[in-house]
Amino acid sequence: MSPSTTLFAGILRRYRRRNSVRRFISTHSRPALPSIEYPLSHPIYTIWAANTSLGKTIVSAGLSTSFLSSPHRKFLYLKPVQTGFPEDSDSRFVFNKYSEFFSQHRREFSVFASNHVLKASVSASEAFSRGGFEVERDEDVSCGNGVVNLGLYEESKLQGSENWEMKGFSKLVCKTMYGWKEALSPHLVAERENARVEDDELLEMLKGCLGSESESEKGEVLCVIETAGGVASPGPSGSLQCDLYRPFRFPAILVGDGRLGGISGTISAYESLTLRGYDIVAVIFEDHGLVNEGPLSSYLRRRVPVLVLPPIPKEMSNNLMEWFQEALPTFHSLEEIMQSAFLERTSRLRNMPRKAHDIFWWPFTQHKLVPEENVTVIDSRCGENFAVHKVNNNVDLITQQFDACASWWTQGPDATLQIELARDMGYATARYGHVMFPENVYEPALECAELLLEGVGKGWASRVYFSDNGSTAIEIALKMALRKFLFDHKIVSDDLVTENAESRVDLKVLALRGSYHGDTLGAMEAQAPSPYTGFYQQPWYKGRGHFLDPPTVAMRDGVWKLSLPQEIETLKPRLEDLTFSLRENIFKESRDTSNLADIYHLYIWKTLELIIDSSGSTRTGALIIEPVIQGAGGMEMVDPLFQRVLVKECRNQKIPVIFDEVFTGFWRLGAESATEFIRCNPDIACFAKLMTGGIVPLAVTLASEAVFEAFVGDSKLQALLHGHSYTAHAVGCTAAVKSIKWFKDSKTNHNLISEAMLLRELWDSDTVRQISLLPAVHRVVVLGTLCALELRAEGSNAGYASLYARSLLQKLREDGIYMRSLGNVIYLMCGPCTSPQSCSNLLNKVYSRLEEL
Amino acid sequence: MSPSTTLFAGILRRYRRRNSVRRFISTHSRPALPSIEYPLSHPIYTIWAANTSLGKTIVSAGLSTSFLSSPHRKFLYLKPVQTGFPEDSDSRFVFNKYSEFFSQHRREFSVFASNHVLKASVSASEAFSRGGFEVERDEDVSCGNGVVNLGLYEESKLQGSENWEMKGFSKLVCKTMYGWKEALSPHLVAERENARVEDDELLEMLKGCLGSESESEKGEVLCVIETAGGVASPGPSGSLQCDLYRPFRFPAILVGDGRLGGISGTISAYESLTLRGYDIVAVIFEDHGLVNEGPLSSYLRRRVPVLVLPPIPKEMSNNLMEWFQEALPTFHSLEEIMQSAFLERTSRLRNMPRKAHDIFWWPFTQHKLVPEENVTVIDSRCGENFAVHKVNNNVDLITQQFDACASWWTQGPDATLQIELARDMGYATARYGHVMFPENVYEPALECAELLLEGVGKGWASRVYFSDNGSTAIEIALKMALRKFLFDHKIVSDDLVTENAESRVDLKVLALRGSYHGDTLGAMEAQAPSPYTGFYQQPWYKGRGHFLDPPTVAMRDGVWKLSLPQEIETLKPRLEDLTFSLRENIFKESRDTSNLADIYHLYIWKTLELIIDSSGSTRTGALIIEPVIQGAGGMEMVDPLFQRVLVKECRNQKIPVIFDEVFTGFWRLGAESATEFIRCNPDIACFAKLMTGGIVPLAVTLASEAVFEAFVGDSKLQALLHGHSYTAHAVGCTAAVKSIKWFKDSKTNHNLISEAMLLRELWDSDTVRQISLLPAVHRVVVLGTLCALELRAEGSNAGYASLYARSLLQKLREDGIYMRSLGNVIYLMCGPCTSPQSCSNLLNKVYSRLEEL
Repeated sequence: MSPSTTLFAGILRRYRRRNSVRRFISTHSRPALPSIEYPLSHPIYTIWAANTSLGKTIVSAGLSTSFLSSPHRKFLYLKPVQTGFPEDSDSRFVFNKYSEFFSQHRREFSVFASNHVLKASVSASEAFSRGGFEVERDEDVSCGNGVVNLGLYEESKLQGSENWEMKGFSKLVCKTMYGWKEALSPHLVAERENARVEDDELLEMLKGCLGSESESEKGEVLCVIETAGGVASPGPSGSLQCDLYRPFRFPAILVGDGRLGGISGTISAYESLTLRGYDIVAVIFEDHGLVNEGPLSSYLRRRVPVLVLPPIPKEMSNNLMEWFQEALPTFHSLEEIMQSAFLERTSRLRNMPRKAHDIFWWPFTQHKLVPEENVTVIDSRCGENFAVHKVNNNVDLITQQFDACASWWTQGPDATLQIELARDMGYATARYGHVMFPENVYEPALECAELLLEGVGKGWASRVYFSDNGSTAIEIALKMALRKFLFDHKIVSDDLVTENAESRVDLKVLALRGSYHGDTLGAMEAQAPSPYTGFYQQPWYKGRGHFLDPPTVAMRDGVWKLSLPQEIETLKPRLEDLTFSLRENIFKESRDTSNLADIYHLYIWKTLELIIDSSGSTRTGALIIEPVIQGAGGMEMVDPLFQRVLVKECRNQKIPVIFDEVFTGFWRLGAESATEFIRCNPDIACFAKLMTGGIVPLAVTLASEAVFEAFVGDSKLQALLHGHSYTAHAVGCTAAVKSIKWFKDSKTNHNLISEAMLLRELWDSDTVRQISLLPAVHRVVVLGTLCALELRAEGSNAGYASLYARSLLQKLREDGIYMRSLGNVIYLMCGPCTSPQSCSNLLNKVYSRLEEL
Repeated sequence: MSPSTTLFAGILRRYRRRNSVRRFISTHSRPALPSIEYPLSHPIYTIWAANTSLGKTIVSAGLSTSFLSSPHRKFLYLKPVQTGFPEDSDSRFVFNKYSEFFSQHRREFSVFASNHVLKASVSASEAFSRGGFEVERDEDVSCGNGVVNLGLYEESKLQGSENWEMKGFSKLVCKTMYGWKEALSPHLVAERENARVEDDELLEMLKGCLGSESESEKGEVLCVIETAGGVASPGPSGSLQCDLYRPFRFPAILVGDGRLGGISGTISAYESLTLRGYDIVAVIFEDHGLVNEGPLSSYLRRRVPVLVLPPIPKEMSNNLMEWFQEALPTFHSLEEIMQSAFLERTSRLRNMPRKAHDIFWWPFTQHKLVPEENVTVIDSRCGENFAVHKVNNNVDLITQQFDACASWWTQGPDATLQIELARDMGYATARYGHVMFPENVYEPALECAELLLEGVGKGWASRVYFSDNGSTAIEIALKMALRKFLFDHKIVSDDLVTENAESRVDLKVLALRGSYHGDTLGAMEAQAPSPYTGFYQQPWYKGRGHFLDPPTVAMRDGVWKLSLPQEIETLKPRLEDLTFSLRENIFKESRDTSNLADIYHLYIWKTLELIIDSSGSTRTGALIIEPVIQGAGGMEMVDPLFQRVLVKECRNQKIPVIFDEVFTGFWRLGAESATEFIRCNPDIACFAKLMTGGIVPLAVTLASEAVFEAFVGDSKLQALLHGHSYTAHAVGCTAAVKSIKWFKDSKTNHNLISEAMLLRELWDSDTVRQISLLPAVHRVVVLGTLCALELRAEGSNAGYASLYARSLLQKLREDGIYMRSLGNVIYLMCGPCTSPQSCSNLLNKVYSRLEEL
C-alpha cells in the first residue's frame, strides 16, 4: 500500500532542507476515552458536511422549524466545537432563526427557547466581554489549558396564540460546548489560543450534554450534533472529527456540495464516514442547478436518499425566512427519514435477540442455557470496547463493554489501528479481492511471509504455508511432521505413488494432557481425551497420541509455585523448593542445569522408551505442544523448563517438533513468539488469531527448510496436497502485514519496550497478588495480555462444563466488562496496545466482584 | 449499512411528489472494457485532485519544467477529458507554459514540443472553428455520437543554445483526447452536447496514446495523465473517474487543498482513491498559510510524502514564470519521488518470483515443477481479470489475464461489485472489526443468516452454523449428521456425558466415488481413496465410507450421454437410450418414473443391505454428496436422477443427508443452489467459496430444526463443541450479505432471468458442441458458470498427477486466459455476472488452441 518509508525518507529530508520545515501536530496519541453510554429513547444525529460552508447550520435550523411544529417536543441542538466565536455562533444562529421563524408563523402552542455557551478559550471569552454581548453569564472560571467556563445563557419564551397551559409547549435547546476566537480550523485555533481540549474531555462533556437533557423527558425529542468544517477536519486536539466522534457512532446526515466538483467531494466525504463505520441516513445539499443529485443517487444506488434544498439567498440582508418556508417540505422529508431510520434501528435492535435465538446455531453453546434475555446485542466495536444495546426498565440504550475475552483471543487493535485496518481492508479488496495463490505471487502474501520469517520464524523457519484457521494450520503441521518423520526414519521409499498399505506403521504424536489444537478431526486426534473429543461429539476420534501430564506453574496465595504430576513427583529424589520469587525466574535458562531438569529428562526418556517397547509397529512421529500456556485447556502455564527438555529429547530422537502458537503468538504472552519464554525453536509452528490483528481469519504453518525438502520430488503426488480456497487471501495478508508491523513498532505500540522486544507489565502486580490471596481464587496466571484466574470449585462446579462462573460474569458485564469463562477459569485479556490504566481499571472491578464472592 | 430501501421508498416517493422529479443518470451499466496492457519501461502517473481548480494542470506543467531539464527525455502529458474547450485546454496550457519557461531559461539542448487534440464534441468543434484558432487540423470526421475527429495539432521547436545534433534534444508531447464545449462536469456536457463517450472507448484510446508513444523510444520518459475535476467526479459516461481509470491502476499523485476545510477534502479524496486500490505516491498542494501539511502528514503517518507549493499568483496577467522558477525545487522533489517509487515498484515486481520461490510453500504444488520463470506475478485484479506483471524481451509490462480458474472457484465480482465490496469491507472493519459470536448477535451475522435461510436453505433449513472454509463446514456437517443418526436410531442414551467406549458402533458415511469434501482429516475420511488421501499425504486416513460408483453425464461428440458404472450396467434389463437431446432433460423430474430410476433404486437398496449384512456393528450414519457436479474429482456431472433416488432411499432409512454445496452453491451452476437441479432437499448443507463473492473466507453449515434438536439438552457437553476463532466474523458476513443480494438481483446481475431465478446461458452452445467434436476432447460439461473439458489422454497423461495440459495452459495464458487444470481436465469458470460476450471470447480462444492440439 505505501511506498517504502526509507526510500522516501531521504528524498523528504532533502526536500525539507530546501524548504522551511514546519512543525507537524501529532494527532495520534489518544488518552483513554470515557465510557460511552447514551439513550436510544429518541433520535440523536450528527450533521456532517463534505466541506466548510455548505450549510450544516442552516440544515440544523431547518430541522428545528420542521420538528418544533407541534407541542410536547424538544429539539436539542449541540455544537461541540465553535471557532470564530463570538462573531460566529451556530447555536445562536439556530436559536435566532427558529425564534424569527416562530414569530412569523406563530403556532397555538408556545416554545421555550434557549442558547447556552458552556466554555470558551480565554481569547474568545475576552472578545466576548469586549463585544458587548449582553446576556446572563457565570463568572469566568478557568478550567486549565486556556479554557474557561463561559456559562453564557440566553433564553426566550416564544408565546403561542393560545395559553401554553392549554395547548402545551415545546422546547428549543441550543448549546455550544466550546468556543474559540479565530475563524480557523479547531486544531489551529486551539494551539494558537493555547486552549487545547483533549478528546476525552470533549466526549465526556458531549455525553453529559446528551444525558442530562434526555433524562425524564416526556414527549418527543430530536437531537442533532453539528460538527465543524468537513468530515475529516481536525478537532481541537488534532484528531480528525470523524475519528473523534467515532466512539458514539451516531447515525449521520451528510450535507453535500451542489457546486461544480461537489459530486466528488460529497462522495469522498461519504466514503470517509463509511470507512469509520458510520451509518449515513440521508444526503442533503443546496441546489446550484447542476443536478448533482443524479450521480449521487446513482452512486448510492438509491439506498440512501438524496434531498435537494432550494438555492440559499446570498445577500447578507436576507433573513432567510422565505427560504425556510420554501425549504420546509424538504426539511419535513429529512425529519421523516431521520425518524423512520431511528425507529427501524431501535426496533431491529430489540428484535435481534429473538431472531438470533431462532436461527443461529452458536458454536460451543448449549442453546437451552442461553435464554433470549441473555443474548448480547453488539452494535459495534471501537478498539477494545463493544458498544452494546440494552433495554433497562424498558428504556433502550447503547452502553460500552470491554471485550475482555478478546473475542476468542483474536483481538489486538486499539481504536486507531482499527480505522487504519479499515482503510487497508478497503484497499486490499479494491486492489486484489482474492487472487489465486499456488504458483503465483502478489504483494500482501509476499510481504506477510517476509515479516513472518523475520519475526516469529526468525532463526529457524524458511517456508510459509498459509491456511484459514488454527485447526487447519495444525492439520497441515501434522502432515508435515509425519512425512518428515517417515523420511528421516527411512520408513518410506522414494516411490510415494505406489503405496503399500500392509507395511504401514501406526504413527502417533507426543502431546501434553490439557493441550488443545482445534476442532477438525486431525487436530482433535493430537489431543488427549477431553469434553471436546467424546464419542457423541466426534465418533471418529481415537486419540492418536501419547499424552504426558505436564508440570504447571501458577501464583497461589501470592507466590508462584510449581505443581508436579504424580509420575514426576515419584522420581523426585528429595524435597526441592518449588516456588519462584519472581515470575521471570520461571523462564531462566539457568534452570537447565538444575536437579529438576534431570528429573524431567529422566521422566521423558523413560516414557519414550516405554512407547517403543510396548507397541511394536507404533511410532511417535511428532511432538506437538502449546508453548508456555495451554489456552483452551484452562489457561495452564506449563513449566517452560519441562517443555524445553521435551523438545531437546525429541530432537535427539529425530521426532519433528511442532509449536502450536495459535493462542500464544503475536504478543498474547507479551512477546511476539512464545519461543522467547521457552527458549528453544520448533521445526514447525502454527499461527493464527492475533496475526491479522483480529479482523479476518488467516493462519500460517511455518516450517524449516529440512521439513520442506521432504515434499520436494518429481511427482505432484509427493507435494503437500492440502489447501483451502482462500489460501493466502490478500485481504487477510494485508491485515497481517499492518498488524504485525503495528504491534512491534514502539511508535504505534506504546506498551512495547523496544530493547527487550517485550510488552511492559500490563496488570498491576500488587492487585494480581491480592487477587491470588482471595479465598475464592484457587490460582492466578498472569503473562502478557492474559490475566487468568481459577475459581476455587469442587465437583460439578469445576471443569469445562461448569456453570459456576456464570453469575459472576453476569455482574461483571453490568460493570462494563465482557468476560467469558472456561468452566471455573475466568480471564481478562487485553490487546497488545491496551493502556495499563485500562487494565488496572478492569482488574479492580474484578477484584471487587471476587471479594463479594 | 444501509437503512431499509423499502422504508425510504415511501418517504422518497412523497418527497418527490412534493418536489420536481429530476431524471437521474445511471452510471452503473458498463460495457466490456478493453484488455489492459501498458509498458513499465517508464513511469506513468495519474494526477488526481481533491476538488476542481486546485492546480492539477500547474502541477503537470511544473513536472514538465522539472523533467525536461536535460536532453534525451520525453514528457508525455495526456488529458483524456477536457471540458470548456477550446477556451480551456489544459494540454495547451502545459505546452504554452513549458515553451515560455524554456524561452526564459534556455538550455543547451533543444525541445520539440507539440500539442494535439484528438476528438471533440460537435459543439466544441464548431466553437473551435468560429474561435479563429489557427492551427493545422484534419478534416472533421464524425465518429458517431456527436463526437468528431478534431485532429488539432500544433508544434514548435524550442531551439537550445547549441545545435541539437550536438547536444541532443528532448520532447514535450501534450495530448487532449476529448474536448467538450461547456465548462461543466463531463457527464453533463456529454449529455447536453449529445457527445457521450463510453468507458471502453475512452480506455481504448488512452491505451493507444500510451502504447504508440512508448514504443521504441530511447532515453527517459515520464508520462502524466491528468483527470478532470475531483477524484470522484463523473467522467463522460457518468462513471466516476476513480472507477473509470481503475483497470489501469496507475500510481497516483494527489493534488490536495491548502485552504480552510482543505485537510478534510484532501483526506477524503485520498481515502476514495485508496478504496479503489490506487497507490498514492505523493500529496502536493498550494500553500494558503494554514499549515495543512501538518495534519496531512500526521494522518499519512509519514508513509506518503506531502509537498507544499508556493502560493500561486491569482492575477490573470501574471504569466507564472517566476512562480514556476520558485516552485522548481518542489517539482524536482516530486519528480524524484515519482522516479524512485517507479523504480522501487519495478524492481520489486522483478524480484517477486525469486522471493516467492524461496519462501512460499504453495499448497497442492510440487515446487520442483514450478521454475521461477513460471511464477505469475499478480499486481492486482479488476473484476474477473488479473493485472499481471511480465517481462518480455527484457521489457516490463502489465498485462491482463482473465481469471478463468475463478481463483479456486471462489470468484464472483465484476469490477463494480468489487468496489462496492471494498467500501463494505472498510465499513465492516471500522464498525465491528471482529466480535465474539457465541451468545451474541450483531447485524451482519444476523442478516447473513436470514438471507441464507430465505435463499439456499429455503424450504428446509432453519439453523445457520458458521465456520471458516468448506472443509470445516463439512466436519461440522458430519458431526451433526452422525449425532442425529445416533439419536434417531436410539444408539445413545440421554446421558451424553458418561460414555461407554465399549458399546461404540462403527459409524460410516455413504458417499460417491470421485467426490471431494476438503483436506482436514474428518472431511477426508468421507471421501474415497484418491491421490489426496494416500498414506504419505495423511497417514491417519482410513476412509470411513462406503463409496458408490455413480453414473455420470457429459457431452461427448456433440451429444449429452449417460455413462453407467459396471454394477448398474449389469442390472439394466435391456438397452435403453442413454442420450439426452437437450441438457435440461437431464434434470427433469419426469425421469423419476423411468425404468432407469427403478434400476438405480434397486442398486442402492442392494448396496445398503449389503453394508448392514456384512459388517455387524458398522452402521451408515450419513449420506454426503456434491449435488450434480463433483468438482475436484474432475468436474464430473453425476446423474441427478441417481442422486435423487439415493437421497430418497436414505430418508427412508433415517440416514441424514448432507449436500456439499461448497463448490456448487451461489450460482456456480447457474442457480443459487444445486437443489434446483437435483430437485430434493438435504437435512444439512455446506456453503463457502462464492458466498462472500470471493473476498474473504467464510463458510456455513445449514441444518434443519430436527438436526439442531439432537444437540439441545441440559448439559453443555450435549452442545456441538466445534468452533473457530473467527466464527461468523463481521467482515465476512458483510461480504456475504452484499454478494448474495447482488447476484440474485436482476438490477445488478444482468445475467439473471428473474422469473426462473436462473442465469442465462453463458457459454455459446454451438461453440461448446464444436469443441466436444474435436479429437483432442474426450468430454465436455457445461453448466452455469462452468465449462469443463476432459482432454483425451491415456496412461500417465490421465488423472490428477498428469502434466498433460501444462503446455496448453501456458499458451492460453499468453492469450490472456489464466486457467488451471485438474490433471487432464481443464475448465473455464466465470462469475455469475460475467457477460456472455466475455465468455464467448474465452471459449473461442480455447477452441483455437484445442484445434492446434
